[in-house]
Amino acid sequence: MSALFAIGIDLGGTNLKGGVVGADGRLHAKRAVALGDDKTPAAVCAQIAALVRELASLTPTPINAVGCGVPGIVDAAAGMVYRSPNLPAWNDVPVRALLAQETGLPILIDNDANMHALGEARCGAGRDLQHMVFLTLGSGIGGGLLLDGVIYRGERGFAGEVGHLVVEPNGAPCGCGGRGCWELYAASRAFATFLPLLSAQERGGLLAATGGNAADLTPALMARLADEGNSVAHEMWARYGRYLGIGIATLLNTLGVMTFVIGGGIARSFDRFAAAARTAALEHTYPFHAPHLSIRRATLGEEAGMVGAALEALRVNLP
Amino acid sequence: MSALFAIGIDLGGTNLKGGVVGADGRLHAKRAVALGDDKTPAAVCAQIAALVRELASLTPTPINAVGCGVPGIVDAAAGMVYRSPNLPAWNDVPVRALLAQETGLPILIDNDANMHALGEARCGAGRDLQHMVFLTLGSGIGGGLLLDGVIYRGERGFAGEVGHLVVEPNGAPCGCGGRGCWELYAASRAFATFLPLLSAQERGGLLAATGGNAADLTPALMARLADEGNSVAHEMWARYGRYLGIGIATLLNTLGVMTFVIGGGIARSFDRFAAAARTAALEHTYPFHAPHLSIRRATLGEEAGMVGAALEALRVNLP
Repeated sequence: MSALFAIGIDLGGTNLKGGVVGADGRLHAKRAVALGDDKTPAAVCAQIAALVRELASLTPTPINAVGCGVPGIVDAAAGMVYRSPNLPAWNDVPVRALLAQETGLPILIDNDANMHALGEARCGAGRDLQHMVFLTLGSGIGGGLLLDGVIYRGERGFAGEVGHLVVEPNGAPCGCGGRGCWELYAASRAFATFLPLLSAQERGGLLAATGGNAADLTPALMARLADEGNSVAHEMWARYGRYLGIGIATLLNTLGVMTFVIGGGIARSFDRFAAAARTAALEHTYPFHAPHLSIRRATLGEEAGMVGAALEALRVNLP
Repeated sequence: MSALFAIGIDLGGTNLKGGVVGADGRLHAKRAVALGDDKTPAAVCAQIAALVRELASLTPTPINAVGCGVPGIVDAAAGMVYRSPNLPAWNDVPVRALLAQETGLPILIDNDANMHALGEARCGAGRDLQHMVFLTLGSGIGGGLLLDGVIYRGERGFAGEVGHLVVEPNGAPCGCGGRGCWELYAASRAFATFLPLLSAQERGGLLAATGGNAADLTPALMARLADEGNSVAHEMWARYGRYLGIGIATLLNTLGVMTFVIGGGIARSFDRFAAAARTAALEHTYPFHAPHLSIRRATLGEEAGMVGAALEALRVNLP
């Protein structure tokens, strides 16, 4: 049997990444392109197909399948994207059929966080694990649940929407329609959420650093301020870690999973929040879990989604 | 092939229930006995074996297997009970081996909430479902997760400890070592937890009904007061329902499961809290889940654990 190769696609709200991946998870070539202004399903699927053709032309080996991670609510079994907060025109779109038509190849589509989780589980920080929660910390909190060795998708493809587990019952309103959702307290908006809880003096000091705009309290800025020795910024990262840990405890207690792999842009600040997260998680769970709890940083970075999507496409399409 | 029968055992902290169950889930005979003062594993296992013999003598058909639900942390695959809050002497006990020796029959052991969940899933309120969360509301909140048609047990048998998902990060301390756990706000202690949040007048009125002891604010008393038209008691049940719904939203968002089956003693007050629970759950999740969310009352009552344990014993031991 000749070696098997798939193309893994990681679709974001503003750009598109793709790579040629072997059945062993090795990435042989990759490309990234910006999405055009036209973000309708037809236009984006045409861009994906062009990227697939370009990547296929880079390798002498035939491509056996294409896997594509899409940000949003995806029914992998049906090949449908129901909605995507970052791609507003994508409602009830048969993406698998569209891409199959454009490329002539077997297609798998799935939620992007699921594909990141699978990449880390097979080839990254979760290698050899059968149970793992992958958390991608960015503008929201994406989750991928590896349970008993497979990605768990739930009843209608909606499992892993962990960003909306409730950490503050009477907390801030969220775009999902709820309030007090985890991603308001442990993703990029967290620092703006925490701002009203500071003393007037602390608040003034932080806002001076941003020209007075709370929305500019980004993780990158908070990381820079912490590096500069700003004590309020340090305290904010500890608070961030505590909220991250509280949600981790809820997932641990509910799912009985002990390994949490942290990816996404905010994982760059892993060392700033990891200790506080671990302490808070252990404060909210049985003490006997302590030796087994592992909160670790993802290792594949932005390649995880491509690797996971390609491996899943090979698994599903070539039984 | 002759009909298959198993005995299902539901071990509690103070008593022991057992029944003869057919492969169709029908209960043919049942008995309940109080546990003796000696609650060591050896003494309790001897009581279980005696109950098995008594039940076996009631039926003309041979018994093929015994399933036993145990309250606590159980590793079903290993046949071990690691600990049981209600049976303090039970630490790292090989219950499957002990019962096999005492009875000479194939034994399955598992967490009691898992067995209740399985009974409801196969023969009760969750019949024909592939995804369901079973919640037993009593002194704590037990959980059983039916995911993709099977009970999900987690990495070390600890999944479903939903009573300890965090609903109030800075909330009341819990016996698990954490704080703000769901079962402080949506199980029998909830009304004592809510007491300090009432006005002095409301608090005085409620405490007068109990002789001044907050620990007496049991679900049964609160149900009676509500039936008598006590408006504070009605408000307390609504608050109870809200906290129940918040935890349900977290489980729905995380697991993508839409059906929640409510059992346990407090389910007798289902109609007092169900509407508030549904409203709160929908306030904390995506609006498009609304048509699919079902919070329903368990239908098998105290028989669910026996039926589930017996069916699981038949499934596991007679492949």
